[in-house]
Amino acid sequence: MPAPTVSGIKRGYIIPIGGREDKLVSPKVLQRFVELAGDKDAYIVIIPTASKLSDTGSEYVKVFKSLGVKNAVSLEIQARADTDNEDYLKHFEKATGIFMTGGNQLLLSTVLGGTKVARMIRRCNAKGVHVAGTSAGAAFISEHMIVGGATGFMPRYNMVNMAPGLGLTNKILVDQHFSQRDRLGRLLTALSYNPFVTGVGIDEDTGAFLADDGVIEVVGSGALTIIDMSHIEHSSMPHARDDDPISLVGIRMHLLLEGSKYDTNAHEVEVVSSTL
Amino acid sequence: MPAPTVSGIKRGYIIPIGGREDKLVSPKVLQRFVELAGDKDAYIVIIPTASKLSDTGSEYVKVFKSLGVKNAVSLEIQARADTDNEDYLKHFEKATGIFMTGGNQLLLSTVLGGTKVARMIRRCNAKGVHVAGTSAGAAFISEHMIVGGATGFMPRYNMVNMAPGLGLTNKILVDQHFSQRDRLGRLLTALSYNPFVTGVGIDEDTGAFLADDGVIEVVGSGALTIIDMSHIEHSSMPHARDDDPISLVGIRMHLLLEGSKYDTNAHEVEVVSSTL
Repeated sequence: MPAPTVSGIKRGYIIPIGGREDKLVSPKVLQRFVELAGDKDAYIVIIPTASKLSDTGSEYVKVFKSLGVKNAVSLEIQARADTDNEDYLKHFEKATGIFMTGGNQLLLSTVLGGTKVARMIRRCNAKGVHVAGTSAGAAFISEHMIVGGATGFMPRYNMVNMAPGLGLTNKILVDQHFSQRDRLGRLLTALSYNPFVTGVGIDEDTGAFLADDGVIEVVGSGALTIIDMSHIEHSSMPHARDDDPISLVGIRMHLLLEGSKYDTNAHEVEVVSSTL
Repeated sequence: MPAPTVSGIKRGYIIPIGGREDKLVSPKVLQRFVELAGDKDAYIVIIPTASKLSDTGSEYVKVFKSLGVKNAVSLEIQARADTDNEDYLKHFEKATGIFMTGGNQLLLSTVLGGTKVARMIRRCNAKGVHVAGTSAGAAFISEHMIVGGATGFMPRYNMVNMAPGLGLTNKILVDQHFSQRDRLGRLLTALSYNPFVTGVGIDEDTGAFLADDGVIEVVGSGALTIIDMSHIEHSSMPHARDDDPISLVGIRMHLLLEGSKYDTNAHEVEVVSSTL
């Protein structure tokens, strides 16, 4: 369950990004995140834990500063021991935005899971701090996370591996690099295990800006694939094994471009935009 | 438009098959076609025009005979001049089933289009003769046919090439080798040009048995992907160009296994089966 919000305070945006977001030429996705976080007065805390490269955090500090942010700091958390660092924890008190980089989502979950840092991110979000994550950072954001799987659009029994995520929301299950890496099948498989949740497939250079009211806005150059499982009448999942295709009756799917909005509570497309 | 039926006479089944149908071990798809055509009393006319191999027709003659059919004949039509052969045309008078092999659908359309043979197939079907086609033969069966395209699930503006087909039905637009060759995107693109038609993606070793009443039954070891475009609220197709993803709001999709039935008129799954 997401951390509880205090009465009168809106939860911050939850912003999974599909990876490879533009950082220089037309950085729309990062720009929108920065705007929400307070533009030049933003205080961005970067979590580069998913990345194996030593300069991922410092590179994002440069990117955010190039976007006009005065305060951007990277917390170099590479092991569970690093999560007790009081100097690191203090930054969360000032944060207006938290950004988790790409890499390997199992690094995020194994290093941060159950630590003070994970609790700080959850509490910050409940208190209004916007939390974005790209690629692995996007996968980690929800209660249930996709770790890996096979390609192709047809869901199959043994197609996806799941693990518990950070849990900022349980309204959506996200997958990233979505059309670029051909991942519809593994998302459908994950959703068919328990169709309570809305599937959100996020293309590269595209962000799903999930607001406090459950409405997602699309920002960026790619598409968002929304899978609405609320009308599923039948699933063969309980009878399937090995490589069997999964029969699913009643999938509803929407392919949305920048400016479009989807309400995850009403299961309705609210605003449609055709232009990239 | 399909050839008109005579009052009181049911149109024969229209049976697109997804390619690579089992011919020896568990030939369920071909067996069902043979049953419909009269079992041992069937008279199967094979059209191997799509194939560049000289023995494709004679191999299918053997397959149908191994399934108990007494009369199976292959019409070796390789050029438009062959379509006037009166010996060939006579076979259509006795046919209870017509089978078009795989290969290249442009060979079927360029050689048969506008000829007596095409007219004979259309009239036979209207008079109750069952017409099956596998792979290229399946692509050719409908009024609008997919010639080629790119892979992936995301529809994109320039993703598919279409051409006029044989026109036995305008209720469905089919694509074959469907999950095996990852063709959801090109089918969605084709459907989004004009969403009047139901999309039917057919896996290998799987047949879509479309009856006179508009109901499709799934036979075989793979899945049938039904794309119901009747609730599309928005499409960005008119504004798209080049490689743009196509925004589509309101796609309904069903993944069906053997024994399941879909009504193309009511746009409803009638029977659901979970078992292969």
